[in-house]
Amino acid sequence: MVNEKYHGLGTAPSVIRELFAYGLQQAKVVGKENVFDYSLGNPSIPAPAKVNETIKKLIDTTDSIQLHGYSMAPGFENVRQAIADNLNARFNCNAKASELFMTCGCAPALVSVAHALTTSPEDEFIAIAPFFPEYNVFFTCAGAKLAVVPADTVHFQIDMDALEKTINEHSVAVVINSPNNPSGVVYTEETLKKIAELLEKKSKEYGHPIYIVADEPYRELVYDGVKVTFIPNVYDNTIVCYSWSKSLSLPGERIGYVYVPEKCADAKAVYDTVSGAAREIGSVCPPTLTQKVIGECVGEMPDLAAYEENRNLLYNSLTEYGYECAKPDGAFYLFVKAPNGDAVAYSEKAKLDHNLLVVPGDGFACPGYFRLSYCVSNDMIKRSLPAFKAMIESYK
Amino acid sequence: MVNEKYHGLGTAPSVIRELFAYGLQQAKVVGKENVFDYSLGNPSIPAPAKVNETIKKLIDTTDSIQLHGYSMAPGFENVRQAIADNLNARFNCNAKASELFMTCGCAPALVSVAHALTTSPEDEFIAIAPFFPEYNVFFTCAGAKLAVVPADTVHFQIDMDALEKTINEHSVAVVINSPNNPSGVVYTEETLKKIAELLEKKSKEYGHPIYIVADEPYRELVYDGVKVTFIPNVYDNTIVCYSWSKSLSLPGERIGYVYVPEKCADAKAVYDTVSGAAREIGSVCPPTLTQKVIGECVGEMPDLAAYEENRNLLYNSLTEYGYECAKPDGAFYLFVKAPNGDAVAYSEKAKLDHNLLVVPGDGFACPGYFRLSYCVSNDMIKRSLPAFKAMIESYK
Repeated sequence: MVNEKYHGLGTAPSVIRELFAYGLQQAKVVGKENVFDYSLGNPSIPAPAKVNETIKKLIDTTDSIQLHGYSMAPGFENVRQAIADNLNARFNCNAKASELFMTCGCAPALVSVAHALTTSPEDEFIAIAPFFPEYNVFFTCAGAKLAVVPADTVHFQIDMDALEKTINEHSVAVVINSPNNPSGVVYTEETLKKIAELLEKKSKEYGHPIYIVADEPYRELVYDGVKVTFIPNVYDNTIVCYSWSKSLSLPGERIGYVYVPEKCADAKAVYDTVSGAAREIGSVCPPTLTQKVIGECVGEMPDLAAYEENRNLLYNSLTEYGYECAKPDGAFYLFVKAPNGDAVAYSEKAKLDHNLLVVPGDGFACPGYFRLSYCVSNDMIKRSLPAFKAMIESYK
Repeated sequence: MVNEKYHGLGTAPSVIRELFAYGLQQAKVVGKENVFDYSLGNPSIPAPAKVNETIKKLIDTTDSIQLHGYSMAPGFENVRQAIADNLNARFNCNAKASELFMTCGCAPALVSVAHALTTSPEDEFIAIAPFFPEYNVFFTCAGAKLAVVPADTVHFQIDMDALEKTINEHSVAVVINSPNNPSGVVYTEETLKKIAELLEKKSKEYGHPIYIVADEPYRELVYDGVKVTFIPNVYDNTIVCYSWSKSLSLPGERIGYVYVPEKCADAKAVYDTVSGAAREIGSVCPPTLTQKVIGECVGEMPDLAAYEENRNLLYNSLTEYGYECAKPDGAFYLFVKAPNGDAVAYSEKAKLDHNLLVVPGDGFACPGYFRLSYCVSNDMIKRSLPAFKAMIESYK
């Protein structure tokens, strides 16, 4: 009597949620300080002070009906203009308010784009392993297929030959997530230019544009001055999905956007169709107060010192113990090779022997690796190091 | 290259938006005070003071990571418990936190339920005219059909014979919206009991439950002490979709819920499937700060004095001039019969001759009537009365 597919989604076990629940349970048994939970990607640095200051200021200066009333379906014009101005200043592009469609976070942004670009059950979106597991849900439930390019496990950039072989006449878009969840790797400008070249060639070959859908919630989370290339600057047919969940530590406030640059193929039709899809999923008029906050705080940058300190401690320690790990330039993840190649077994043993909670890469379409979310306290990392050391030694 | 259906949704003209835009334009020409805009259903009373007080208090007392971090997918347990307690105190029911799934407003609540209950393209949801036009979008895009029961234009209750004839083996649910948009009518307990009786009979006849989907954003907006029956109390197989958009004047903040009572047929499967559908449309973990506000303000009631004064002035004046109008016990709408039965012509003439903006009922599946949203200033109503009078006299 209910839709089987969605029932499956609603009842599917989640490795991450189960690890997290196990950690809460074990904390009661062995003490919170003896559980090392690297499972969740929930930001651990506070939002910039200006966020809460702005909320208070808006409350004091704005009529309740304006402050909490409906926004326009695509979001407030002045907020979108502020975002466009910020993009233009930082990425030397030519964004306009009319190219931005605001959403309740990145998830409905991706869903709206998936729905908008899917015209046939043969349509394929292409994901590069490792990737965020919800892509499977968003793109297949839009009625398309998700084709997977196996991970480049040498550098966690992109295996261009594998990508080229995956592209066919049904390809609609390649989904690019950089800085990457779960690898923490930033795709180099060289990698992105190669993709652009390949997609231009393939678009001509098949007679239709193959888009890049750039999923960019981690865009501002990079270390050591590494540059994150703004993908529309290297490939015209790029549609950006963004959220402030990580960059302003506002994951709970559900605010993001779809950016369809005018230079993109069929830009107006794509934008209009994204807005129609957002309507169909009941996700228009994103939160008013939060939109207004973004309008004033779009220029704020996160204080990444804590994440960087965590990354350095964890990366240096683990490689010193003998672990192999992708070079983590961004986001707040490390993607570590399981000592004997079985990450599920590693995760289970680490959990049972050390209350060390790590997520196997299988769900990210990259078995043999496990993900560490280092958006945790530096103290917890320090306390957890002996467990990592004991774990790798147990494999020797 | 884009999905045609969603492109259509994204580009469809909206009578209401066009009227609103016309009003803004005309205000520049004839002066704001000479435009009488009854087009939009945006609350015009402020949110209770406690809402903004609570936001400030939460900012002062809550760690940023807790205040703005992800909530659980179905919403915070303690917030859902506060909502359940409030329902139980007011409606003498037995709601539990585990029966509530919080959503980013009522739209994704309805969409999730539509997706969850649709299992075949032959499935039919039944709407009672007049009804909110987005039902067409939500239910047909879920892959089902929307069957329409013509309006009972005598009392704007429900034509039971017509409803019975509309029910067949493909019927999944009847969508009930009371207080009603656009009629302002509250369905009586007698009406609801008749529906319950009919659905029980038909459920047996066809061997599967036929649900009520109760769309209840206007539940708290009633006048003259009229009672709004809590539908789960008269029919077990009721799924409630709610939002605080109107009751707390928070339409911009996107907060609502789906309530699947345990006594409902296949309750656990329905709840799980709603949560899977919410995941598939990217609409889980609704806004954290707003959830926390609701947890503390769920007991607040709107100050309806302004709406009631507006309703009385408008209803009494219009009926005195000779208009016929459904008895408006709730919401903030009047649904008025067009003097010669052509509401589109009335709306156009009112617009051009008097800058009086009213919405024809055609979009609500009830031609011949027009909707007035009286969530406006009382002064505007007073200034507009000569226009209404002149309009009806022009038909004599």
